[in-house]
Amino acid sequence: MSTQSQLRVGMVGYAFMGSAHSQAWRTVNRVFDLPLHARMTAVCGRDEANVAAAAARLGWEQHTTDWRALVSRDDIDLIDICTPGDSHAEIAIAALAAGKHVLCEKPLANTIDEARQMAAAAERGAAAGVRSMCGFNYRRVPAVALMRRMVADGRIGDIRHVRAVYLQDWITDPQFPLVWRLQKDKAGSGALGDIGAHIIDLTQFVTGQRITGVTALTETFVKERPLPQASSGLSAAAGDGNGTVTTGQVTVDDAALFLARLDGGAIATYEATRFATGRKNGLRVEINGSLGSIAFDFERMNELEFYDATEPSTEQGFTTILVTEPDHPYLSAWWPPGHGIGYEHSFTHQARDLIEAIATGADPAPSFTDALQVQLVLDAVLRSAGHGSGWTDVEPIFAEVAA
Amino acid sequence: MSTQSQLRVGMVGYAFMGSAHSQAWRTVNRVFDLPLHARMTAVCGRDEANVAAAAARLGWEQHTTDWRALVSRDDIDLIDICTPGDSHAEIAIAALAAGKHVLCEKPLANTIDEARQMAAAAERGAAAGVRSMCGFNYRRVPAVALMRRMVADGRIGDIRHVRAVYLQDWITDPQFPLVWRLQKDKAGSGALGDIGAHIIDLTQFVTGQRITGVTALTETFVKERPLPQASSGLSAAAGDGNGTVTTGQVTVDDAALFLARLDGGAIATYEATRFATGRKNGLRVEINGSLGSIAFDFERMNELEFYDATEPSTEQGFTTILVTEPDHPYLSAWWPPGHGIGYEHSFTHQARDLIEAIATGADPAPSFTDALQVQLVLDAVLRSAGHGSGWTDVEPIFAEVAA
Amino acid sequence: MSTQSQLRVGMVGYAFMGSAHSQAWRTVNRVFDLPLHARMTAVCGRDEANVAAAAARLGWEQHTTDWRALVSRDDIDLIDICTPGDSHAEIAIAALAAGKHVLCEKPLANTIDEARQMAAAAERGAAAGVRSMCGFNYRRVPAVALMRRMVADGRIGDIRHVRAVYLQDWITDPQFPLVWRLQKDKAGSGALGDIGAHIIDLTQFVTGQRITGVTALTETFVKERPLPQASSGLSAAAGDGNGTVTTGQVTVDDAALFLARLDGGAIATYEATRFATGRKNGLRVEINGSLGSIAFDFERMNELEFYDATEPSTEQGFTTILVTEPDHPYLSAWWPPGHGIGYEHSFTHQARDLIEAIATGADPAPSFTDALQVQLVLDAVLRSAGHGSGWTDVEPIFAEVAA
Amino acid sequence: MSTQSQLRVGMVGYAFMGSAHSQAWRTVNRVFDLPLHARMTAVCGRDEANVAAAAARLGWEQHTTDWRALVSRDDIDLIDICTPGDSHAEIAIAALAAGKHVLCEKPLANTIDEARQMAAAAERGAAAGVRSMCGFNYRRVPAVALMRRMVADGRIGDIRHVRAVYLQDWITDPQFPLVWRLQKDKAGSGALGDIGAHIIDLTQFVTGQRITGVTALTETFVKERPLPQASSGLSAAAGDGNGTVTTGQVTVDDAALFLARLDGGAIATYEATRFATGRKNGLRVEINGSLGSIAFDFERMNELEFYDATEPSTEQGFTTILVTEPDHPYLSAWWPPGHGIGYEHSFTHQARDLIEAIATGADPAPSFTDALQVQLVLDAVLRSAGHGSGWTDVEPIFAEVAA
Repeated sequence: MSTQSQLRVGMVGYAFMGSAHSQAWRTVNRVFDLPLHARMTAVCGRDEANVAAAAARLGWEQHTTDWRALVSRDDIDLIDICTPGDSHAEIAIAALAAGKHVLCEKPLANTIDEARQMAAAAERGAAAGVRSMCGFNYRRVPAVALMRRMVADGRIGDIRHVRAVYLQDWITDPQFPLVWRLQKDKAGSGALGDIGAHIIDLTQFVTGQRITGVTALTETFVKERPLPQASSGLSAAAGDGNGTVTTGQVTVDDAALFLARLDGGAIATYEATRFATGRKNGLRVEINGSLGSIAFDFERMNELEFYDATEPSTEQGFTTILVTEPDHPYLSAWWPPGHGIGYEHSFTHQARDLIEAIATGADPAPSFTDALQVQLVLDAVLRSAGHGSGWTDVEPIFAEVAA
Repeated sequence: MSTQSQLRVGMVGYAFMGSAHSQAWRTVNRVFDLPLHARMTAVCGRDEANVAAAAARLGWEQHTTDWRALVSRDDIDLIDICTPGDSHAEIAIAALAAGKHVLCEKPLANTIDEARQMAAAAERGAAAGVRSMCGFNYRRVPAVALMRRMVADGRIGDIRHVRAVYLQDWITDPQFPLVWRLQKDKAGSGALGDIGAHIIDLTQFVTGQRITGVTALTETFVKERPLPQASSGLSAAAGDGNGTVTTGQVTVDDAALFLARLDGGAIATYEATRFATGRKNGLRVEINGSLGSIAFDFERMNELEFYDATEPSTEQGFTTILVTEPDHPYLSAWWPPGHGIGYEHSFTHQARDLIEAIATGADPAPSFTDALQVQLVLDAVLRSAGHGSGWTDVEPIFAEVAA
Repeated sequence: MSTQSQLRVGMVGYAFMGSAHSQAWRTVNRVFDLPLHARMTAVCGRDEANVAAAAARLGWEQHTTDWRALVSRDDIDLIDICTPGDSHAEIAIAALAAGKHVLCEKPLANTIDEARQMAAAAERGAAAGVRSMCGFNYRRVPAVALMRRMVADGRIGDIRHVRAVYLQDWITDPQFPLVWRLQKDKAGSGALGDIGAHIIDLTQFVTGQRITGVTALTETFVKERPLPQASSGLSAAAGDGNGTVTTGQVTVDDAALFLARLDGGAIATYEATRFATGRKNGLRVEINGSLGSIAFDFERMNELEFYDATEPSTEQGFTTILVTEPDHPYLSAWWPPGHGIGYEHSFTHQARDLIEAIATGADPAPSFTDALQVQLVLDAVLRSAGHGSGWTDVEPIFAEVAA
Repeated sequence: MSTQSQLRVGMVGYAFMGSAHSQAWRTVNRVFDLPLHARMTAVCGRDEANVAAAAARLGWEQHTTDWRALVSRDDIDLIDICTPGDSHAEIAIAALAAGKHVLCEKPLANTIDEARQMAAAAERGAAAGVRSMCGFNYRRVPAVALMRRMVADGRIGDIRHVRAVYLQDWITDPQFPLVWRLQKDKAGSGALGDIGAHIIDLTQFVTGQRITGVTALTETFVKERPLPQASSGLSAAAGDGNGTVTTGQVTVDDAALFLARLDGGAIATYEATRFATGRKNGLRVEINGSLGSIAFDFERMNELEFYDATEPSTEQGFTTILVTEPDHPYLSAWWPPGHGIGYEHSFTHQARDLIEAIATGADPAPSFTDALQVQLVLDAVLRSAGHGSGWTDVEPIFAEVAA
């Protein structure tokens, strides 16, 4: 295969997200017919031994510890950023400057300032044909994509209510260690940025409306935790391996709650928490409109609930659509009806859409600017929570860029 | 049967609530063994013909249009108030003054001032052996009573999250007429007082915690509606019968959203709306604690969801308890396991508990003071919503009483 | 109220079924507008003290221990038979001969011969304007009535599959005593006649098709049980009260399984068992047709599942219809949408339909002949199970009558 | 990587099953740590152009149209058979004779005779260290593996009931063409062998009991169908592309129903159909035991329902275990809790277990003999259905082998 028809990927970071992205790059061309073929050229990490092992395990051709070298290599077409949020801006801006397409995990950045710089860099890149995309993978769950399509098609009419929660429970144990996701300098915020960002993006995507203002409340239930020995993904072991456990301050929110108004007239409730015992990955969204309602729960990701208020009154009810039909988004490429797909497929679909956009010269969504807007909502939430929950407008996207 | 062992009831109002209460008085002694036998002595309403028809239909021995006469009759032991909220205070205070026990529908009153006067009258009555109770009937759904018992027994540990919604959709049609429940002078507030009050009471009852402060948002989606020709229950026909339709202002909220803190450390989201298309009586509460979680949905009122985080990790999950066993609250009196009960049974159980309290000389719960506290939460919600959603403390119960 | 407009009821038996029927007679005229008013004139039982207590508790005006006297009294219009199956025939035939309308609990009789005699008596009665009805109460669950209506309206097209189970678990404990329902002489059969009869009637009612032949399997898992001290309803205490426990043989099936063909071309599976641990009253029916499917589970009796294969392919799914709307069967008389009803309401609806039929001079359904046909299916099942599960035709209804 | 540590796979067939197996071989070593590394060496099919395209698409290094050559190549260690059932025996026996490990899709063969020969060949192979396995992939769904583990651990006690259905609806349209799965010579049987075989294997696997006898009923609702133009997977287009549609006879069952007894004392109902409108891949199994029950529905494949009758009576209920925890079978290798997996993962797990068995010199399950026993059950079903549904014993496995 000629390199012209390849998309040579360099990935930075190889933990939970890196593993999910690897599965996507490995699979995407085996399932979808695409004009470009993804090649897993190189993976980058800080620790030589670890990144070598990851490369072998995940199937990357090469490995490196130098992301700056990686982003400037001629044989790399796209940089896939899977690191914690504090390094996103530096890597993404350098990669875009080097003319590489960029896929960056969410949240886009840990600060508004960084996010604005990234969005500006992405816009400059776009002008030069360099594509960038933020990894809000849940948009690519078929049921969510179908939800968007049905809302856009007017199936639920004018939207009145949005009800979104993202419920997890992996840190309810006070002895769970102080992993990077619980440290403000690395993660930016806690449940809010990690999972709250997903429901902000998802609900704005599905409704086609944007949050204009919020009133918020955050809480850190467990304020001190043991320092971690090591951590990967969402699990971790406390202690230093010598039996000594020292503790540190949790500097992010365990839970964030907010009410919002959207620019199309809807009102909304949002909740992101890591303390909802028994809810493992409970991303749930319900939207009520004048003609119907639609609801999704990631723990049953192959299903979509739809209420059609235009049906005969005796037959109305919530319909559980099993989103596995060939005419549902992304699914003609997969298995027969009723044979569900899993979490990782959202990343494969994300890779599919990104490859398609690059090949056809289109700007993929969500853009860095879209992701910046999500950051602005997160920022409004934190400002409201920090000032007596008073109503707080979301800053306009172009405020400082324009200045 | 001697009158000593009877509880002679006089009911004021005979619409939706009056009909439900009648079914309860008619049934309670046929199902439960109780020391007093309820007698449906008289029903009162404003229109002579209508109240006569209601008496015949519902099985009341007598009818009257004069509630003042009713509350002072010697052959009446208890006044059951089923009228709109604007008349609660006057009737309840007069009945208590006349030495009658009082059961008053929620919300207790339309204003804090009235509610305080009622609570004070109830406390004076209690001192004289006269009992009063506010009709938050959902406490008497067996699954809710079980929920309370399990939380009180520590089955979910320390409470971190409360998530409560009460979703209805009966006024999504803009042509639905301006019934009394949409008029502030009669109903006090809209979704907030009508159904929001229920989830406030229910969550405080189940958790044993009280809301200390809120930040809130209210909305009236349809601001003008046709005047009603007639209305009963939750349905109504618009127009004056002559084909002329005139409109009026909706003066209450269609939806009320608020975040709250509870005095035991929990944080909470609340939503009450009449615009959640497809949700008919969606009173849903989930509570997450350090040891487990528990959830209830009135649309499946015979079920309770329980997550026990102390079970072996491979067997944890939400257990759907079918609350129809003889050792579940109230159920030994009813049918075999799996043979569910309905909405009206909550009123029968309420009547049972009230009769038991009267017979044993105990003060029933929720008291008028409990109901006043719910009114104070409603008041804080409206104040927050009226002032930029700023954080608003719930006023203390005894503030003005003490003055 | 004049006796002309009354329907004076005499009920025989006052245990589980008697209690449910009493609630129906007490309630029916308070909820439905009917041309006749049910009067609870007298209840009959074998033990003087017990029946007196039952009369007082359940609200019957009089009590008696002499059913023969009861059925011939001038001031009784209808005999309601709630005794075990071995006494149905004698009472029903005597009552019909005395010109009384009869409501008889299912199964109609313990033998085909008795059932044929009852059907013949009912047909003679009908000719003289005397009405009779068998108490397959589940037909009157609103969701089941709606199911019937939708199938009759062609909403699922031609029926291919019927899948019916009735799952209970109240005798899984081998120490549960040998109550009358486990004795062939009193109960006729076990799970088969008690609960299997319900799903036979229900599926034939809903489909409008009749079972023509079966292949069957029955099992008695626990063959010997302690003799009961006393029993009521479905629960019982073992022993004779003196600490001595003697045992007896279980002479009925614990479980009955059969496959069937229906006269409209459908094929079916049926299962009735009292050993389905965790299933309390799991009457579940699913019917698949050429245009859709429909499913019901009594444990969620206010819901009906409907799949409409004529909807756009991307929006198809099982719709959970919350059967609480005013235009659903029976429900305009009850509460607002979303406020569910319970098990006992099926009996109230049965009373309603029976009163309506009597008042209007129509023959109510299911008739004794309908109930005889169910007995013939039960008989075919037992014959097949007794002869190596060979295919066994259901005997024609009129075979011996015609002889 | 040395060839010693590789497992060089040659796959025959590349349609629906071939695609699923390819995804498994591609993924298994990227997710699991295994002693052998699967290499996708060559794929085989009858049409040169099609197999070449499939090789490119699915990522096989080479392609061939000669399966006989493939099975004798030195650089192939394992033959993976994904063809229709009529070719299984010939390929598998040749491969085993050539010393290749064999993975064969189910059903093992179209006739008992072929299945016996395959089982015998596999036993000879096993003696020589050559491994064989039949692809009942559903055993490797984590929830099913957990189900097996819990039943084996005694969590539901003695098994009384098995209730198994496999419901699909892809041929309800009479115009759906006569694909190979509807032709007896290619497919052996219809719904029975295709999906009924799965629930036979799955329930025997989970219970540890084997079916000893059956009574059965089969039906072909649509007896004639248009001949197909082309077909792949479960979908197909009718016609010859020139607008001419000719029809042919459907020679297999559309639906098969049977009752069974298992050797441990349980009784069972089974249903396999392609006419259950709205059920897409409804493989559902419920097992009731003396201490509890357990249930699975493939359409919610990440969930397992468990009822523990040893819990306190007020807290019993069906627990929905979200089978995504690291200590659930296979799941430590995948994503964090709550991040579900899909259909294809069952094949990846199958590949994992097979590789593990080959590397450690163990015989994998299900063996060809296990699969032969499933064929014997299918055979008994067809014999019973063909002879008036009379009770039919399942033939012993070693009957003819011993002869």
